[in-house]
Amino acid sequence: MILTVTCNPAVDVTYTLDRLTPGEVHRIETVHERPGGKGVNVARVLTQLQQPTIAVGPGDREFGRLLGQSGVACDFPALLPRVRRTVVTVGDGQTTSLWEPGPVATPDTMVSLERLVQVHLAAATVLVVSGSVAPGLPDTMPARLAAMAQRAGVPVVLDLDDAPLAAAASSGGAVLMPNREELSRLLATAPVDDVPAAARALSARTGAPVVVTLGVEGLVAVADGQCWRAVPPEAVVGNPTGAGDATAAGVAFGLARGLSWPEILPHAVALGAAAVLAQLAGEVDLAAYRRWVSLVAVKPLVSLTQER
Amino acid sequence: MILTVTCNPAVDVTYTLDRLTPGEVHRIETVHERPGGKGVNVARVLTQLQQPTIAVGPGDREFGRLLGQSGVACDFPALLPRVRRTVVTVGDGQTTSLWEPGPVATPDTMVSLERLVQVHLAAATVLVVSGSVAPGLPDTMPARLAAMAQRAGVPVVLDLDDAPLAAAASSGGAVLMPNREELSRLLATAPVDDVPAAARALSARTGAPVVVTLGVEGLVAVADGQCWRAVPPEAVVGNPTGAGDATAAGVAFGLARGLSWPEILPHAVALGAAAVLAQLAGEVDLAAYRRWVSLVAVKPLVSLTQER
Repeated sequence: MILTVTCNPAVDVTYTLDRLTPGEVHRIETVHERPGGKGVNVARVLTQLQQPTIAVGPGDREFGRLLGQSGVACDFPALLPRVRRTVVTVGDGQTTSLWEPGPVATPDTMVSLERLVQVHLAAATVLVVSGSVAPGLPDTMPARLAAMAQRAGVPVVLDLDDAPLAAAASSGGAVLMPNREELSRLLATAPVDDVPAAARALSARTGAPVVVTLGVEGLVAVADGQCWRAVPPEAVVGNPTGAGDATAAGVAFGLARGLSWPEILPHAVALGAAAVLAQLAGEVDLAAYRRWVSLVAVKPLVSLTQER
Repeated sequence: MILTVTCNPAVDVTYTLDRLTPGEVHRIETVHERPGGKGVNVARVLTQLQQPTIAVGPGDREFGRLLGQSGVACDFPALLPRVRRTVVTVGDGQTTSLWEPGPVATPDTMVSLERLVQVHLAAATVLVVSGSVAPGLPDTMPARLAAMAQRAGVPVVLDLDDAPLAAAASSGGAVLMPNREELSRLLATAPVDDVPAAARALSARTGAPVVVTLGVEGLVAVADGQCWRAVPPEAVVGNPTGAGDATAAGVAFGLARGLSWPEILPHAVALGAAAVLAQLAGEVDLAAYRRWVSLVAVKPLVSLTQER
């Protein structure tokens, strides 16, 4: 059972309209609404792969019920007064996003969330914690959950940004999955040019694997002192939202099956690319994934410092 | 007890941001959310006046609970899968509105809503039906509710537009409160120039009073074969949203107290103007209302046809 945690879930609301014009009244034609958040998206992809998975996190009176209805096994007890919404308007080829901050979680939410994760860790083979942290929860929340899993002998994959990523990098021990921008912010450098070197440095600091996602270019991974570059077999055009979550799902999938890193990376890259073909975040084009998984090129990169 | 019915309630969500830019991601700073809809706004104003009032309509699992928490007596049973939202972004002096259509009501919702209104009519002195009709409910819904009230001897005030207004005008017997644009659409004329003549014509057709609201210019009313123009005592600048609902509240308030039309109209005009001073729809500046109510000029208009 793969356990995914979403510390700041959201209901994704999509409004279809002709064109968004500031200052005007718009009568929306269609409303599409569904429970979301990065950990939820990871669980959706794993569910599509028929991999036993449960998505958990702090919910409200409706969130878990709606997510369960959509076929994702989940446990989102009402720990928040209300789950925030992300409103997206789509029209005239333009996408405009309005991200609510969400209500501030009360101090006991942290303890309740730790208990929730502790309960589900008993049956977990991998823990994935993805996305931001609800206001009121500490930035160390994902790192704390990761430490609990490590004490239970469960491997951890973290897809974080900003302060929660920094906290997790300090604690170490978990697979970190930043993209290039997140890695730059973490290392407080200008945009990272030498991704393999930066990934090696981060992995040396955490004592754990690092997977840097590079969008259409695939990824760079460092694990067990080795470094690989994995590239998708073809250029894919579509909706990149949720591609990072599908990549994280691929890493978790491989770890749950006890695969080696060179075996894991094709799943991660093929799922990321197959997500671009799917309409909604958290979905993948399964046929494309199956076609591509054996075609992903995984190339070992030799360290320059070792070569000298 | 004044009974207000909202056949298409909405949760009004206001996002404060720097500036709405199509195509961009916006992290919203503050979210303000409250149950709304025109009949709900009428009930809010009457509640501010300490006039016994109950707001009813088709709700969902949350709507009535939230409205009750805000201090408005209400009965919104869960007859809809979900109450629609109206999202408004406010920033850089600009207001942009996104109005959801709302889910389609099932066929039994009409019967349930009629039963709900029937129950509350027993204690009602006036019925007010305001606003649009939820998808799935018939355009004749307000006219049907008005007919029920009339059979029970309860006077009715209708603030409607488009097809529901046309249906109510055909049935007759209820006070209609169109604004100039709604009156033009109903009469299928070019913009109405001679409002008193149009109001007289409509009143002759319905056999009931007609109050045409004219924004900052006050209103024109026809009742019992007489016609009045009522003008606010000073020009008011502010937020006109909800001013029409406050005017309807004034008419209902006067009818509930058994006042004559020349006595009712100052309440209607003073409340409409006092609503412009208040920040939110459904609120009035009570001090301004009390100051203005005795200063509203109500002038009888003699019919030109009678003069000839």
